[in-house]
Amino acid sequence: MTQLSRVQNFTVSRDGVAAGVEQSLENPFGLDHRELMSWYLGTASMPGRPGFGGTRGLDDYFARDFANNIGAEIMGRNKFGPQRGPWADHEWQGWWGDEPPFHTPVFVMTHHVRPSLTLSDTTFHFVDAGPSDVLTQAKAAANGRDVRIGGGVTTVREFLDADLLDTLHVAVAPVDLGPGLALWESPDDLNDRFEHEVVPSASGVVHHLFWKR
Amino acid sequence: MTQLSRVQNFTVSRDGVAAGVEQSLENPFGLDHRELMSWYLGTASMPGRPGFGGTRGLDDYFARDFANNIGAEIMGRNKFGPQRGPWADHEWQGWWGDEPPFHTPVFVMTHHVRPSLTLSDTTFHFVDAGPSDVLTQAKAAANGRDVRIGGGVTTVREFLDADLLDTLHVAVAPVDLGPGLALWESPDDLNDRFEHEVVPSASGVVHHLFWKR
Repeated sequence: MTQLSRVQNFTVSRDGVAAGVEQSLENPFGLDHRELMSWYLGTASMPGRPGFGGTRGLDDYFARDFANNIGAEIMGRNKFGPQRGPWADHEWQGWWGDEPPFHTPVFVMTHHVRPSLTLSDTTFHFVDAGPSDVLTQAKAAANGRDVRIGGGVTTVREFLDADLLDTLHVAVAPVDLGPGLALWESPDDLNDRFEHEVVPSASGVVHHLFWKR
Repeated sequence: MTQLSRVQNFTVSRDGVAAGVEQSLENPFGLDHRELMSWYLGTASMPGRPGFGGTRGLDDYFARDFANNIGAEIMGRNKFGPQRGPWADHEWQGWWGDEPPFHTPVFVMTHHVRPSLTLSDTTFHFVDAGPSDVLTQAKAAANGRDVRIGGGVTTVREFLDADLLDTLHVAVAPVDLGPGLALWESPDDLNDRFEHEVVPSASGVVHHLFWKR
Protein backbone atom coordinates (compact mmCIF):
# COMPACT_ATOMS: atom_id res chain seq x y z
CA MET A 1 0.00 0.00 0.00
CA THR A 2 1.09 3.54 -0.76
CA GLN A 3 1.41 5.76 2.29
CA LEU A 4 -0.57 8.88 1.52
CA SER A 5 -0.12 12.41 2.75
CA ARG A 6 -3.68 13.61 3.46
CA VAL A 7 -5.43 16.83 4.42
CA GLN A 8 -8.80 16.07 6.02
CA ASN A 9 -11.76 18.07 7.29
CA PHE A 10 -9.83 21.27 6.74
CA THR A 11 -12.46 23.99 6.77
CA VAL A 12 -12.33 27.40 5.18
CA SER A 13 -14.84 30.17 4.63
CA ARG A 14 -16.38 30.96 1.23
CA ASP A 15 -13.64 33.55 0.85
CA GLY A 16 -10.98 30.92 1.53
CA VAL A 17 -10.03 31.99 5.05
CA ALA A 18 -9.00 29.24 7.44
CA ALA A 19 -7.60 31.20 10.36
CA GLY A 20 -8.36 34.74 11.30
CA VAL A 21 -6.43 37.52 12.85
CA GLU A 22 -6.31 37.89 16.62
CA GLN A 23 -5.71 34.22 17.50
CA SER A 24 -5.76 33.93 21.28
CA LEU A 25 -6.03 31.47 24.11
CA GLU A 26 -9.77 31.95 24.30
CA ASN A 27 -10.18 31.84 20.55
CA PRO A 28 -7.70 29.40 18.98
CA PHE A 29 -8.86 29.97 15.42
CA GLY A 30 -8.82 33.73 15.85
CA LEU A 31 -12.40 33.87 14.64
CA ASP A 32 -15.70 32.23 15.28
CA HIS A 33 -14.67 28.58 15.34
CA ARG A 34 -18.20 27.30 15.87
CA GLU A 35 -19.47 29.12 12.81
CA LEU A 36 -16.76 27.62 10.62
CA MET A 37 -16.92 24.11 12.07
CA SER A 38 -20.64 23.72 12.72
CA TRP A 39 -20.97 21.13 9.94
CA TYR A 40 -18.44 18.97 11.82
CA LEU A 41 -19.61 19.68 15.35
CA GLY A 42 -23.09 18.42 14.41
CA THR A 43 -21.96 14.93 13.37
CA ALA A 44 -22.38 11.78 15.43
CA SER A 45 -18.79 10.67 14.79
CA MET A 46 -16.87 13.83 15.63
CA PRO A 47 -13.83 12.53 17.53
CA GLY A 48 -14.28 12.98 21.26
CA ARG A 49 -18.01 13.62 20.96
CA PRO A 50 -19.46 13.20 24.43
CA GLY A 51 -22.43 10.84 24.41
CA PHE A 52 -24.82 10.19 21.60
CA GLY A 53 -26.77 12.10 19.02
CA GLY A 54 -25.70 13.95 15.91
CA THR A 55 -26.21 13.40 12.22
CA ARG A 56 -25.10 10.33 10.28
CA GLY A 57 -25.37 11.71 6.77
CA LEU A 58 -22.64 12.80 4.38
CA ASP A 59 -20.80 15.07 6.82
CA ASP A 60 -20.47 12.18 9.23
CA TYR A 61 -18.55 10.14 6.63
CA PHE A 62 -15.91 12.85 6.60
CA ALA A 63 -15.90 13.15 10.39
CA ARG A 64 -15.44 9.43 10.87
CA ASP A 65 -12.71 9.20 8.27
CA PHE A 66 -10.55 11.41 10.52
CA ALA A 67 -8.59 8.52 12.04
CA ASN A 68 -9.15 5.94 9.28
CA ASN A 69 -5.74 4.49 8.36
CA ILE A 70 -3.90 7.51 9.80
CA GLY A 71 -0.61 6.71 11.55
CA ALA A 72 0.80 10.18 12.25
CA GLU A 73 -0.06 13.87 12.04
CA ILE A 74 2.02 16.87 11.05
CA MET A 75 0.95 20.28 12.31
CA GLY A 76 2.31 23.79 12.43
CA ARG A 77 3.30 25.36 15.70
CA ASN A 78 0.34 27.74 15.52
CA LYS A 79 -2.00 24.78 15.66
CA PHE A 80 -0.20 23.51 18.76
CA GLY A 81 -0.43 26.76 20.66
CA PRO A 82 -0.71 30.55 20.55
CA GLN A 83 2.87 31.32 21.66
CA ARG A 84 5.39 32.75 19.20
CA GLY A 85 9.20 32.77 19.36
CA PRO A 86 11.28 30.85 21.93
CA TRP A 87 9.32 28.93 24.59
CA ALA A 88 9.30 30.75 27.93
CA ASP A 89 8.80 27.34 29.53
CA HIS A 90 7.31 23.96 28.62
CA GLU A 91 4.10 24.24 30.59
CA TRP A 92 1.92 24.58 27.51
CA GLN A 93 0.83 21.10 26.37
CA GLY A 94 -1.47 21.96 23.48
CA TRP A 95 -5.16 22.84 23.34
CA TRP A 96 -6.53 19.37 23.87
CA GLY A 97 -6.14 18.50 27.56
CA ASP A 98 -4.98 15.10 28.80
CA GLU A 99 -6.61 13.12 25.97
CA PRO A 100 -5.66 14.67 22.64
CA PRO A 101 -7.78 13.31 19.76
CA PHE A 102 -4.81 12.19 17.65
CA HIS A 103 -3.79 8.85 19.23
CA THR A 104 -0.64 8.75 17.08
CA PRO A 105 2.73 10.51 16.92
CA VAL A 106 2.28 14.20 16.07
CA PHE A 107 5.09 16.21 14.48
CA VAL A 108 4.96 19.92 15.32
CA MET A 109 6.94 22.05 12.88
CA THR A 110 8.73 24.84 14.76
CA HIS A 111 12.02 26.71 14.76
CA HIS A 112 11.97 26.40 18.56
CA VAL A 113 12.32 22.76 19.45
CA ARG A 114 11.60 21.33 22.88
CA PRO A 115 11.53 17.79 24.33
CA SER A 116 8.87 15.36 23.07
CA LEU A 117 5.69 15.29 25.09
CA THR A 118 3.37 12.32 25.65
CA LEU A 119 -0.26 12.75 26.66
CA SER A 120 -2.24 9.51 26.80
CA ASP A 121 -1.57 7.74 23.45
CA THR A 122 -0.46 10.87 21.60
CA THR A 123 3.22 11.91 21.50
CA PHE A 124 4.17 15.36 20.22
CA HIS A 125 7.59 15.71 18.61
CA PHE A 126 8.96 19.20 17.89
CA VAL A 127 11.00 19.39 14.71
CA ASP A 128 12.88 22.21 13.07
CA ALA A 129 12.88 20.96 9.47
CA GLY A 130 11.22 21.54 6.12
CA PRO A 131 8.10 19.73 4.93
CA SER A 132 9.93 17.04 2.99
CA ASP A 133 12.10 16.00 5.97
CA VAL A 134 9.20 16.14 8.40
CA LEU A 135 7.07 14.01 6.06
CA THR A 136 9.86 11.42 5.88
CA GLN A 137 9.98 11.29 9.70
CA ALA A 138 6.20 11.10 10.01
CA LYS A 139 5.91 8.30 7.43
CA ALA A 140 8.56 6.31 9.27
CA ALA A 141 6.58 6.74 12.51
CA ALA A 142 3.21 5.95 10.93
CA ASN A 143 3.64 2.19 10.84
CA GLY A 144 2.72 1.89 7.19
CA ARG A 145 -0.35 4.03 7.53
CA ASP A 146 -1.08 7.47 6.07
CA VAL A 147 0.05 10.85 7.39
CA ARG A 148 -2.47 13.59 8.12
CA ILE A 149 -1.36 17.15 7.44
CA GLY A 150 -3.39 18.78 10.18
CA GLY A 151 -2.88 22.47 9.44
CA GLY A 152 -3.07 25.35 10.04
CA VAL A 153 -3.27 27.07 6.75
CA THR A 154 0.42 28.05 6.60
CA THR A 155 1.41 24.42 7.00
CA VAL A 156 -1.05 23.16 4.39
CA ARG A 157 0.19 25.82 1.97
CA GLU A 158 3.79 24.83 2.64
CA PHE A 159 3.02 21.19 1.75
CA LEU A 160 1.03 22.24 -1.31
CA ASP A 161 3.85 24.47 -2.52
CA ALA A 162 6.32 21.61 -2.07
CA ASP A 163 3.92 19.31 -3.95
CA LEU A 164 3.86 16.88 -1.03
CA LEU A 165 0.11 16.26 -0.71
CA ASP A 166 -1.65 13.23 -2.20
CA THR A 167 -5.24 14.03 -1.20
CA LEU A 168 -7.09 17.00 0.27
CA HIS A 169 -10.56 17.24 1.71
CA VAL A 170 -11.46 20.89 2.23
CA ALA A 171 -14.89 21.88 3.48
CA VAL A 172 -16.08 25.32 2.44
CA ALA A 173 -18.44 26.71 5.07
CA PRO A 174 -21.27 29.07 4.08
CA VAL A 175 -19.76 32.09 5.83
CA ASP A 176 -17.56 34.98 4.74
CA LEU A 177 -14.78 35.92 7.12
CA GLY A 178 -12.90 38.72 5.47
CA PRO A 179 -9.28 39.34 6.41
CA GLY A 180 -7.22 36.41 7.59
CA LEU A 181 -4.92 33.71 6.27
CA ALA A 182 -6.44 32.27 3.11
CA LEU A 183 -5.86 28.77 1.75
CA TRP A 184 -6.63 29.83 -1.82
CA GLU A 185 -8.27 32.41 -3.98
CA SER A 186 -10.52 29.71 -5.42
CA PRO A 187 -10.78 25.92 -5.00
CA ASP A 188 -10.06 25.66 -8.72
CA ASP A 189 -6.51 26.93 -8.04
CA LEU A 190 -5.49 23.29 -7.51
CA ASN A 191 -7.05 21.83 -10.65
CA ASP A 192 -3.78 21.79 -12.56
CA ARG A 193 -2.34 19.13 -10.26
CA PHE A 194 -5.36 17.42 -8.72
CA GLU A 195 -8.55 15.71 -9.71
CA HIS A 196 -11.30 17.72 -8.05
CA GLU A 197 -14.81 16.72 -7.02
CA VAL A 198 -17.32 19.18 -5.55
CA VAL A 199 -19.92 17.66 -3.23
CA PRO A 200 -22.54 19.94 -1.63
CA SER A 201 -23.89 18.75 1.70
CA ALA A 202 -27.33 19.24 3.24
CA SER A 203 -25.65 21.16 6.09
CA GLY A 204 -24.75 23.99 3.72
CA VAL A 205 -21.05 23.16 3.61
CA VAL A 206 -19.51 22.20 0.25
CA HIS A 207 -16.94 19.41 0.35
CA HIS A 208 -14.05 19.71 -2.09
CA LEU A 209 -12.15 16.48 -2.71
CA PHE A 210 -8.78 16.55 -4.43
CA TRP A 211 -6.47 13.74 -5.33
CA LYS A 212 -3.22 13.77 -7.24
CA ARG A 213 -3.52 13.23 -10.97
CA MET B 1 -20.53 4.08 22.29
CA THR B 2 -23.70 2.69 20.77
CA GLN B 3 -23.19 -0.40 18.64
CA LEU B 4 -24.86 0.28 15.33
CA SER B 5 -26.43 -2.09 12.85
CA ARG B 6 -25.29 -0.77 9.45
CA VAL B 7 -25.99 -1.46 5.79
CA GLN B 8 -23.10 -0.20 3.65
CA ASN B 9 -22.33 0.08 -0.04
CA PHE B 10 -25.49 -1.84 -0.85
CA THR B 11 -26.12 -1.16 -4.51
CA VAL B 12 -29.38 -1.31 -6.40
CA SER B 13 -30.49 -0.31 -9.86
CA ARG B 14 -32.64 2.76 -10.56
CA ASP B 15 -35.62 0.41 -10.43
CA GLY B 16 -34.56 -0.83 -6.98
CA VAL B 17 -33.26 -4.24 -8.00
CA ALA B 18 -30.34 -5.61 -6.01
CA ALA B 19 -30.19 -9.22 -7.16
CA GLY B 20 -31.43 -10.65 -10.40
CA VAL B 21 -32.94 -13.91 -11.35
CA GLU B 22 -30.72 -16.78 -12.47
CA GLN B 23 -28.05 -16.46 -9.80
CA SER B 24 -25.30 -18.94 -10.62
CA LEU B 25 -21.74 -19.87 -9.82
CA GLU B 26 -20.48 -17.79 -12.74
CA ASN B 27 -22.78 -14.91 -11.95
CA PRO B 28 -23.25 -14.53 -8.19
CA PHE B 29 -25.54 -11.53 -8.45
CA GLY B 30 -27.64 -13.13 -11.16
CA LEU B 31 -27.16 -10.02 -13.24
CA ASP B 32 -24.38 -7.87 -14.53
CA HIS B 33 -22.40 -7.32 -11.35
CA ARG B 34 -19.84 -5.04 -12.98
CA GLU B 35 -22.51 -2.74 -14.31
CA LEU B 36 -24.13 -2.39 -10.90
CA MET B 37 -20.89 -2.10 -8.93
CA SER B 38 -18.73 -0.09 -11.32
CA TRP B 39 -18.82 2.97 -9.02
CA TYR B 40 -17.22 0.82 -6.32
CA LEU B 41 -14.83 -1.15 -8.49
CA GLY B 42 -13.28 2.11 -9.69
CA THR B 43 -12.24 3.34 -6.25
CA ALA B 44 -8.71 3.25 -4.87
CA SER B 45 -9.88 1.83 -1.51
CA MET B 46 -12.05 -1.05 -2.66
CA PRO B 47 -11.18 -3.85 -0.22
CA GLY B 48 -8.83 -6.34 -1.81
CA ARG B 49 -7.92 -4.00 -4.64
CA PRO B 50 -4.77 -5.34 -6.22
CA GLY B 51 -2.11 -2.65 -6.55
CA PHE B 52 -2.62 1.04 -6.96
CA GLY B 53 -4.75 3.42 -8.95
CA GLY B 54 -8.41 4.25 -8.73
CA THR B 55 -10.36 7.34 -7.74
CA ARG B 56 -10.17 9.06 -4.36
CA GLY B 57 -13.29 11.19 -4.61
CA LEU B 58 -16.66 10.78 -2.93
CA ASP B 59 -17.17 7.13 -3.90
CA ASP B 60 -13.88 6.24 -2.27
CA TYR B 61 -15.10 7.55 1.10
CA PHE B 62 -17.87 4.99 0.99
CA ALA B 63 -15.52 2.23 -0.19
CA ARG B 64 -13.03 2.89 2.60
CA ASP B 65 -15.72 3.08 5.26
CA PHE B 66 -16.45 -0.62 4.58
CA ALA B 67 -14.40 -1.89 7.52
CA ASN B 68 -14.40 1.27 9.65
CA ASN B 69 -15.47 0.28 13.18
CA ILE B 70 -17.13 -2.92 11.93
CA GLY B 71 -16.76 -5.93 14.25
CA ALA B 72 -19.03 -8.51 12.59
CA GLU B 73 -21.14 -9.10 9.50
CA ILE B 74 -24.51 -10.76 9.05
CA MET B 75 -25.38 -12.15 5.65
CA GLY B 76 -28.06 -14.28 4.08
CA ARG B 77 -27.25 -17.74 2.81
CA ASN B 78 -27.69 -16.59 -0.78
CA LYS B 79 -24.81 -14.18 -0.32
CA PHE B 80 -22.65 -17.04 0.97
CA GLY B 81 -23.34 -19.37 -1.92
CA PRO B 82 -25.66 -20.43 -4.72
CA GLN B 83 -26.82 -23.71 -3.14
CA ARG B 84 -30.37 -24.10 -1.82
CA GLY B 85 -31.77 -26.60 0.70
CA PRO B 86 -29.65 -29.01 2.74
CA TRP B 87 -25.89 -28.96 2.10
CA ALA B 88 -24.80 -31.91 -0.03
CA ASP B 89 -21.36 -31.52 1.60
CA HIS B 90 -19.28 -28.78 3.19
CA GLU B 91 -16.86 -28.24 0.33
CA TRP B 92 -18.30 -24.84 -0.58
CA GLN B 93 -16.44 -22.16 1.39
CA GLY B 94 -18.01 -18.99 -0.03
CA TRP B 95 -17.19 -16.88 -3.06
CA TRP B 96 -14.11 -15.19 -1.69
CA GLY B 97 -11.26 -17.71 -1.79
CA ASP B 98 -8.76 -18.12 1.03
CA GLU B 99 -8.76 -14.43 2.04
CA PRO B 100 -12.34 -13.24 2.47
CA PRO B 101 -12.57 -9.44 2.73
CA PHE B 102 -14.46 -9.46 6.06
CA HIS B 103 -11.69 -10.03 8.65
CA THR B 104 -14.32 -10.47 11.39
CA PRO B 105 -16.85 -13.08 12.45
CA VAL B 106 -19.58 -13.49 9.81
CA PHE B 107 -23.02 -14.85 10.70
CA VAL B 108 -24.73 -16.64 7.82
CA MET B 109 -28.50 -16.93 8.27
CA THR B 110 -29.70 -20.31 7.06
CA HIS B 111 -32.17 -23.04 7.98
CA HIS B 112 -29.42 -25.53 7.20
CA VAL B 113 -26.65 -25.12 9.75
CA ARG B 114 -23.17 -26.54 9.36
CA PRO B 115 -19.95 -26.28 11.39
CA SER B 116 -18.22 -22.92 11.63
CA LEU B 117 -15.56 -22.29 9.03
CA THR B 118 -12.40 -20.20 9.39
CA LEU B 119 -10.57 -18.78 6.40
CA SER B 120 -7.66 -16.51 7.28
CA ASP B 121 -9.04 -14.00 9.83
CA THR B 122 -12.70 -14.48 8.86
CA THR B 123 -14.86 -17.07 10.63
CA PHE B 124 -18.26 -17.98 9.20
CA HIS B 125 -20.93 -19.12 11.66
CA PHE B 126 -24.13 -20.67 10.34
CA VAL B 127 -27.20 -19.81 12.41
CA ASP B 128 -30.82 -20.83 12.12
CA ALA B 129 -32.45 -17.89 13.90
CA GLY B 130 -34.41 -14.73 13.24
CA PRO B 131 -32.83 -11.30 12.71
CA SER B 132 -33.17 -10.16 16.31
CA ASP B 133 -31.37 -13.22 17.72
CA VAL B 134 -28.69 -13.15 15.06
CA LEU B 135 -28.07 -9.46 15.72
CA THR B 136 -27.65 -10.17 19.42
CA GLN B 137 -25.07 -12.86 18.62
CA ALA B 138 -23.25 -10.64 16.15
CA LYS B 139 -23.10 -7.69 18.57
CA ALA B 140 -21.67 -9.94 21.26
CA ALA B 141 -18.99 -11.11 18.81
CA ALA B 142 -18.22 -7.62 17.50
CA ASN B 143 -16.08 -6.52 20.43
CA GLY B 144 -18.00 -3.30 20.97
CA ARG B 145 -17.88 -2.37 17.32
CA ASP B 146 -20.73 -2.09 14.81
CA VAL B 147 -22.40 -4.88 12.87
CA ARG B 148 -22.65 -4.76 9.10
CA ILE B 149 -25.78 -6.22 7.53
CA GLY B 150 -24.17 -7.41 4.33
CA GLY B 151 -27.18 -8.51 2.28
CA GLY B 152 -28.52 -9.83 0.01
CA VAL B 153 -31.71 -7.97 -0.49
CA THR B 154 -33.89 -10.53 1.33
CA THR B 155 -31.73 -10.17 4.43
CA VAL B 156 -31.71 -6.38 4.31
CA ARG B 157 -35.51 -6.38 3.92
CA GLU B 158 -35.86 -8.76 6.86
CA PHE B 159 -33.87 -6.40 9.11
CA LEU B 160 -35.78 -3.38 7.81
CA ASP B 161 -39.11 -5.07 8.47
CA ALA B 162 -38.00 -5.95 12.00
CA ASP B 163 -36.86 -2.32 12.48
CA LEU B 164 -33.34 -3.50 13.38
CA LEU B 165 -31.27 -1.15 11.21
CA ASP B 166 -29.66 2.04 12.53
CA THR B 167 -28.07 3.31 9.32
CA LEU B 168 -28.21 2.43 5.62
CA HIS B 169 -26.02 3.51 2.76
CA VAL B 170 -27.61 2.44 -0.51
CA ALA B 171 -26.03 3.39 -3.82
CA VAL B 172 -28.41 3.67 -6.75
CA ALA B 173 -26.59 2.83 -9.97
CA PRO B 174 -27.60 4.47 -13.25
CA VAL B 175 -28.93 1.26 -14.79
CA ASP B 176 -32.37 -0.35 -15.06
CA LEU B 177 -32.46 -4.08 -14.45
CA GLY B 178 -36.10 -5.06 -14.73
CA PRO B 179 -37.28 -8.22 -12.97
CA GLY B 180 -35.47 -9.30 -9.84
CA LEU B 181 -35.56 -8.90 -6.10
CA ALA B 182 -36.16 -5.24 -5.30
CA LEU B 183 -35.12 -3.45 -2.12
CA TRP B 184 -37.85 -0.85 -2.47
CA GLU B 185 -40.27 0.81 -4.83
CA SER B 186 -38.64 4.15 -4.08
CA PRO B 187 -35.88 5.32 -1.72
CA ASP B 188 -38.50 7.55 -0.10
CA ASP B 189 -40.24 4.42 1.22
CA LEU B 190 -38.01 4.68 4.29
CA ASN B 191 -38.57 8.34 5.08
CA ASP B 192 -41.13 7.65 7.79
CA ARG B 193 -38.50 6.06 10.00
CA PHE B 194 -35.18 7.46 8.79
CA GLU B 195 -33.50 10.76 8.10
CA HIS B 196 -32.57 10.62 4.43
CA GLU B 197 -29.85 12.44 2.51
CA VAL B 198 -29.42 12.13 -1.26
CA VAL B 199 -25.87 12.68 -2.54
CA PRO B 200 -25.20 12.42 -6.28
CA SER B 201 -21.68 11.34 -7.22
CA ALA B 202 -19.60 12.28 -10.25
CA SER B 203 -19.55 8.57 -11.20
CA GLY B 204 -23.28 8.67 -11.96
CA VAL B 205 -24.30 6.71 -8.90
CA VAL B 206 -26.56 8.41 -6.32
CA HIS B 207 -25.77 7.71 -2.68
CA HIS B 208 -28.73 7.50 -0.32
CA LEU B 209 -27.87 7.85 3.36
CA PHE B 210 -30.41 6.92 6.00
CA TRP B 211 -30.16 7.08 9.75
CA LYS B 212 -32.76 6.36 12.39
CA ARG B 213 -34.79 9.35 13.52
